[in-house]
Amino acid sequence: MTKVKEQLKNDPLMPLRHTAEHVLHMAMQELYPSLKKVMGPPIEDGFYFDFDLDTKVSADDFAKIEKLMQEIIDADLPVKHAESSVEEAKKIFKDNEYKIDTVNEIAQRGESVTLYEIGKKGDKHCDLDLCAGPHAKSTGEVKAFKLLSVAGAYYKGSEKNKMLTRIYGTAFSDKKDLDDYIKKQEEAKSRDHRKLGKELDLFVFSDLVGSGLPLFTPKGTIIRKELENFVKALQDKHGYQTVLIPHLAKKELYETSGHWAKYGENMFKVISHDKEEFSLKPMNCPHHTQIYAARPRSYRDLPQRYAEVTAVYRCEKAGELLGLSRVYMLTQDDAHVFCTEEQAIDECLKVYDIIKTFYAALGFGMNMRVRMSLRDPKTPEKYLGSDEQWDKAENMMREVAKTAQLDVYDGIGEAAFYAPKLDFMAYDALGREWQLATIQLDFNQPARFGLEYTDKDGTKKTPVMIHRAILGSVERFMSVLIEHFAGAFPVWLAPVQVQIIPIAEKHVDYGQKLVQLLKEKGLRAEIDDHNETMQSKIRAAQVQKIPYMFVVGDREMENNQVSVRLRSGESYNAQNVADTIDKLNAIYLTKSLNLW
Amino acid sequence: MTKVKEQLKNDPLMPLRHTAEHVLHMAMQELYPSLKKVMGPPIEDGFYFDFDLDTKVSADDFAKIEKLMQEIIDADLPVKHAESSVEEAKKIFKDNEYKIDTVNEIAQRGESVTLYEIGKKGDKHCDLDLCAGPHAKSTGEVKAFKLLSVAGAYYKGSEKNKMLTRIYGTAFSDKKDLDDYIKKQEEAKSRDHRKLGKELDLFVFSDLVGSGLPLFTPKGTIIRKELENFVKALQDKHGYQTVLIPHLAKKELYETSGHWAKYGENMFKVISHDKEEFSLKPMNCPHHTQIYAARPRSYRDLPQRYAEVTAVYRCEKAGELLGLSRVYMLTQDDAHVFCTEEQAIDECLKVYDIIKTFYAALGFGMNMRVRMSLRDPKTPEKYLGSDEQWDKAENMMREVAKTAQLDVYDGIGEAAFYAPKLDFMAYDALGREWQLATIQLDFNQPARFGLEYTDKDGTKKTPVMIHRAILGSVERFMSVLIEHFAGAFPVWLAPVQVQIIPIAEKHVDYGQKLVQLLKEKGLRAEIDDHNETMQSKIRAAQVQKIPYMFVVGDREMENNQVSVRLRSGESYNAQNVADTIDKLNAIYLTKSLNLW
Repeated sequence: MTKVKEQLKNDPLMPLRHTAEHVLHMAMQELYPSLKKVMGPPIEDGFYFDFDLDTKVSADDFAKIEKLMQEIIDADLPVKHAESSVEEAKKIFKDNEYKIDTVNEIAQRGESVTLYEIGKKGDKHCDLDLCAGPHAKSTGEVKAFKLLSVAGAYYKGSEKNKMLTRIYGTAFSDKKDLDDYIKKQEEAKSRDHRKLGKELDLFVFSDLVGSGLPLFTPKGTIIRKELENFVKALQDKHGYQTVLIPHLAKKELYETSGHWAKYGENMFKVISHDKEEFSLKPMNCPHHTQIYAARPRSYRDLPQRYAEVTAVYRCEKAGELLGLSRVYMLTQDDAHVFCTEEQAIDECLKVYDIIKTFYAALGFGMNMRVRMSLRDPKTPEKYLGSDEQWDKAENMMREVAKTAQLDVYDGIGEAAFYAPKLDFMAYDALGREWQLATIQLDFNQPARFGLEYTDKDGTKKTPVMIHRAILGSVERFMSVLIEHFAGAFPVWLAPVQVQIIPIAEKHVDYGQKLVQLLKEKGLRAEIDDHNETMQSKIRAAQVQKIPYMFVVGDREMENNQVSVRLRSGESYNAQNVADTIDKLNAIYLTKSLNLW
Repeated sequence: MTKVKEQLKNDPLMPLRHTAEHVLHMAMQELYPSLKKVMGPPIEDGFYFDFDLDTKVSADDFAKIEKLMQEIIDADLPVKHAESSVEEAKKIFKDNEYKIDTVNEIAQRGESVTLYEIGKKGDKHCDLDLCAGPHAKSTGEVKAFKLLSVAGAYYKGSEKNKMLTRIYGTAFSDKKDLDDYIKKQEEAKSRDHRKLGKELDLFVFSDLVGSGLPLFTPKGTIIRKELENFVKALQDKHGYQTVLIPHLAKKELYETSGHWAKYGENMFKVISHDKEEFSLKPMNCPHHTQIYAARPRSYRDLPQRYAEVTAVYRCEKAGELLGLSRVYMLTQDDAHVFCTEEQAIDECLKVYDIIKTFYAALGFGMNMRVRMSLRDPKTPEKYLGSDEQWDKAENMMREVAKTAQLDVYDGIGEAAFYAPKLDFMAYDALGREWQLATIQLDFNQPARFGLEYTDKDGTKKTPVMIHRAILGSVERFMSVLIEHFAGAFPVWLAPVQVQIIPIAEKHVDYGQKLVQLLKEKGLRAEIDDHNETMQSKIRAAQVQKIPYMFVVGDREMENNQVSVRLRSGESYNAQNVADTIDKLNAIYLTKSLNLW
C-alpha cells in the first residue's frame, strides 16, 4: 500500500467524502442522462470523479450540480453495502464498458465484487455502483461540500485512451471546516510563488528559454545571495571550504558512482565532437570525490569539507515541471565531508547545528519534523553496498538523532541509493510540509572511488563521506519561502528594504541623498520619483511589500528627518535619519524577523 | 596573407632561420642518407623541418646533429638562389615524391620554381632544395642556433597521410639572444599553469570527469572568488545588478539570437525526455535579453545592467583542449547593459573605468594594448545586421576609444558576429599577449529579440545592448595570472596568506592561537604542526609561495610576538602581533602588490 493510500485509510473524513463523490455522480447522471460514470476516489483534500461525457461541463455549471447534490443530501438517503457475483455485476453494468473493465480486473485479482446502493430503485434519487467503500451511513452525513474544479483526464492516465471529464470537490462534517479549508486554499492561491514571483519581480519564465528554466531577476537574486551568504557564514565557522566543479562529466564518473545504473533516466546526456558520452551532473558527490582523490591524504588532513552552491540537472518530463518547485536545473547548497568513521557523528552534529541556526532565523525553527530515511530491506536491489554497511550507517544516524535530541520518525524506503538520511521537514505558514535540509551518511561512494587516507599507524583506510544540504534545492526553497512569507520577506531578505517617497518634486533631491546614505551603510534603498501622489506611492510600495517607506516632505527635509511607515501599517513621524539608519541596520544584520 | 605570415615576413630573423633550417636538413641528410626531405618553414620563434625517416630520432640525437650543423655553419657556405623549369625540377627531385608533389602544386599555381643551393656539388657539404627564400647570404650568418624538440606530424596535416618526423629548432644572429630566448622558455616552463596548478593545489583534472573539465580545489577557489568579488565591488559602484540564469535553453532562443546559425557547431546539444531540443548556453546574452523582455520598460528604467559570473559551454575538439586555457566549460564574469543610444558611450566608458582599475591593481595596467575589433567588409555573411548599423556601432566605439584616450589598433574581421568590440590585450610577466577584457556595442540582438522601451514622448524604441567582461574567461584568466605571478600571488589573492611555523611542539598552542586571531581579523592562515625542523617547514612554505611565515619559538611566545619571514627572503624579528596583523590587513585590503 502506498503511503498516500495508507494516510487516506486513516483519514476519518474518507467515508464521508466517498459518499459525497457518489452524490456527485448521482446528480450528474440526472443532469446528463447520456453520460457514463467511470470512477473516482477520495483524495487527500477531497475527492474527484471521472465521467465519459460529450457535453462540456465548466465551473459555471457547478451551481446547478451543487443544488441537486444538496437535494440528495437533504433526502438523507441510506447507503447500503452489497456483495455481487462477477456475472451479476456484468449484467448490471452491461451498458458501461468502463465498469465492465473494472469488474474484469476485480475478477482477475480473484477478489469479490462489492456494490453500494444509495436510495432505492424507484426513489426520486437512487444509485447502484461498484465500490469498495467505506461510506457514511446516509447522505445526510455530508454536512458541507463544494465542487472545486473541472479538468480533462485520460482514462487510466494513458494518452491512448479517451479523454474524460474530471470534477474535483471536497466535503466536511461541518460547515466551519469547509469554510476554513476554502479560506486556506484562497490564501495559498494568493501566496502562490508563481503569482508572487511575477508581481514582486523575483523570477521570470521565457517561452524562448523554456519551461522548467527560471531566470532570476536582480531582486530574486538578492534573496538567493542573502540565503547563500548566511549558510556560508554558518558553515565557515565549522571549517567548510568552497570548491568549484564543472557541470559536465564523462559517463565513466557516473558508472563508478552508480548513478548511471540507478539514476540514469533522470540524467541529461551530452555528446562531444569526438563522440564521447558526457552527462550534465545529476549530483555533485562524484565530482567532489575527485578533488579528494587528487592527492594523498593523511589522517591529519581530515575532515576535508568541500562546499559549493552549484547546479544539478534533472531530466524531468515536461508535464511534471512546476514553477520553482520542479525544474530542469536546480541549485544545491551542497557539501561533502570526508572524514574518519570516528569523526562522522560529530560532523553530522555540526551540520545539524547549521540547520538549526538557519531555520530558527527564518522562524521555521519550532516547526520542523525530522525523518530518519532508511533503506527498504524488501528491495535491496535499489541500494548500493552491503547490509552490514547499511546497518552501521543507520545505527550511526540514530546516534546522531539521539545526541541532538531530535524527535525523528522512520521513513522506510526513503534512503538515498547510497546512504541513509536525516531529512528535515519544515512546515510553512500554511501548515504545509516541505523536505528541505538533509544529512546523509555514506559508506559506499568513498569505497567505489577508491578514496583513502593514511592513518596514524601508516595503514591505508577508507574515509566516510557525509552529504549535506541546508536549503536543499535553492529554487524549491525560494518557492517555500515566498509562500511562507507571502512575499513580505524579513528585512535581511527584502530585495528593496527602504522605499523613499518624496511628497513633491522639490523633495526628490533630499530623497536621493537618503538613498545614497542608505546604500553607503549597506542597506538596499530606492526612490519613487514618479509624478504621483504620496498615497499612490505608498500603495505601490505596499504592493511590493517593501518593509520601510521613508516619506519625506518639507518638515523632514528641514530637520534632516524621515517619516517612517512600516509595511505593517504603523507610522513613526519625524525620526532622526542617522538613528533610523542605525536601527534598520541592526535589524538587518541580526536577521531579525521584526520590523521595528 | 594570414596575420602570422605577414608578421614573419617582417621578421628580420626570418632569412637567417630559413638558412638554419636548410643547415638542419643538410646535416640530417648526411647522418641519415636514406631519409627523404619533406618541407619546413621558419615559424614565430624559430623553424621546423619534416623528414620521412624510418629511424627514430629523439632529443638524445640532437648533440650529434647540432655538431654537424655547426660544422656546416663554420664552413660559411654561400647560399645561392636559382630559377628552374618545372620539368628540370622534377628531374632533380625524381626520387622524392614529396618534392614532386610540391613542384606540381607550384606548376598548378602557375608560379615559377625557385631553388636554393648551399655549397657546391662536390663540396663536403652541399644541398639543393626547392625554396621560396629569402635566405642569409651564407651559412656563417647563423651565429647561434639550437634544436628544441622532435615530434610526429602527418604529411600536410592529414591523418590519411604518412606520419613524418618533425624537428623544431631556433636560430639567432648572436649568442646572447639565443641564451635569453632559452632562459625565457625555461622560465615559461617553470611557470606553466598546469605545473603550478598542481604544485600549489589550485585545480585538478580527473580521468573520470574528463579533459577540459578542471575542478577547482579550495585554494584555487579562493583566488577565483577574490577576483570575482573585486570585479563585483567595482561594478556595483556603477549600478550593476546580479542576475542568475539557467545553463540550458531551447533551440528557439538561439535561433532568434542567431547563435544556432552562426555558432551552432560550438554548441553542446541536449535532448529532453519529451524530445525537445536544448543547448548548453554558449553565451549569456540571449538569456539576459529575456529578463529585460519580461516586463515593460520605460526610459526611466534604463540603463538596466545585468551582471553574472556564470558558465558557458564550448564543444571543442578533445585534441584542442589545453589546461585552463581551453576547456569545455568556462566561466565568464559577464554583463549586459541595456540602454538608450544616447547613454551607450557613457556606459562603455564606465566599463573601461572598471577594466582600468582592475588591471592596474594586478600590475598589468601599463602593459595593455587595445584592439578595435571590426567586421571584415569582405565577408558580410559572417555578421548579423545592416552596414548602417555596423558603421554606427563602429563609429561609436571609436568615440569611446578617443574619449578614453586609448591607443587602439584595428583588428579587421575580429568583431563578434553581432557587434564590434574593444578587446583589451594584456602582456604578462613573460611578455606574452593575452586577450582578456572586452566591450561590445550591439545594435543587433535587441532588435532580434524585439526588446523595447517607452521613451519620454511615449514612443516605443529599441535599446542598445553592451556586452562586457572584465576577466573574460575566468579559467583562462587564472592561467595567465598563475604564469604572470609564477604562483607567487599578491597577498590579497594568496590562498594561504600566513603560515605559522612553531619551532617545537611546545609552541604549537601559541601558533594555533595566532591562526585563530588571524582568521578573526579576516586573514587566511594555517599552521604547520608537523614534526619537522623549522628549516624544512620554511622550505615547504616557500615552495607553496606563501607570502608570510610567522616563526614562533620561546621568545615570541613569551613576548606575544612573531618573527616574520617574507616569501621574498627578508626577515623581521620580534614583531608585535597586533601591529603585524594590522599591517598585513592593510596590505590585503588595499590589494597592494608589496609584501611589507
